[in-house]
Amino acid sequence: MDQDAKKTALRMIPYGIYVLTAEGKDGSVAAATVNWVTQASFSPPLVVIGVKADSGAHSIVKESGAFALNMLGKGQQGVAFNFFKSHERDGDSIGGEAPYNPHPSRFNRDGHYRKML
Amino acid sequence: MDQDAKKTALRMIPYGIYVLTAEGKDGSVAAATVNWVTQASFSPPLVVIGVKADSGAHSIVKESGAFALNMLGKGQQGVAFNFFKSHERDGDSIGGEAPYNPHPSRFNRDGHYRKML
Repeated sequence: MDQDAKKTALRMIPYGIYVLTAEGKDGSVAAATVNWVTQASFSPPLVVIGVKADSGAHSIVKESGAFALNMLGKGQQGVAFNFFKSHERDGDSIGGEAPYNPHPSRFNRDGHYRKML
Repeated sequence: MDQDAKKTALRMIPYGIYVLTAEGKDGSVAAATVNWVTQASFSPPLVVIGVKADSGAHSIVKESGAFALNMLGKGQQGVAFNFFKSHERDGDSIGGEAPYNPHPSRFNRDGHYRKML
């Protein structure tokens, strides 16, 4: 199968769009737009998320073992585009999106949801 | 986070619908409708697919190390419903879907596409 045919086939998989956020132990945060997401189990509830191995988000999630997956709705394309690039934390906001809530409900390393604080 | 909230969040992930097919060494075949699918890498091209661990499709894919992921188009809801249940191979067809092509282009165990024969 040639490379173009592979790409054509892979492009047929539909995706949603999400912003993955995570907080490091030193208070640094990452927010990255992701779309490779699928559920992997009902019990326990598990998800698989593709995160670039050389990204800041990847290193923070690896360290903290926790992340939030923020579902975007219609009309939030701007938010998605915003987090194609990386931003530093600015008080309680990141990339101009405020308030940044450092304690959302999240999935933990094993994919279970965990309520932070 | 309560169970209902978890379910509500997980239902927000959109999916396509696919029929996974696989052929065992003894010529047995499996066809199962799946929807937990996501790409996992560009290079090499990798996909993640959720397959029920106690299903016939799972045991055949585990044995053969190969499967085909058939993309369904609009108007093929009937095919999707058909493969919610399991069927035996019948010559070159399965579940009344003919022709059954035992040698499609497929992903191998590592997720690479492999042209069968």
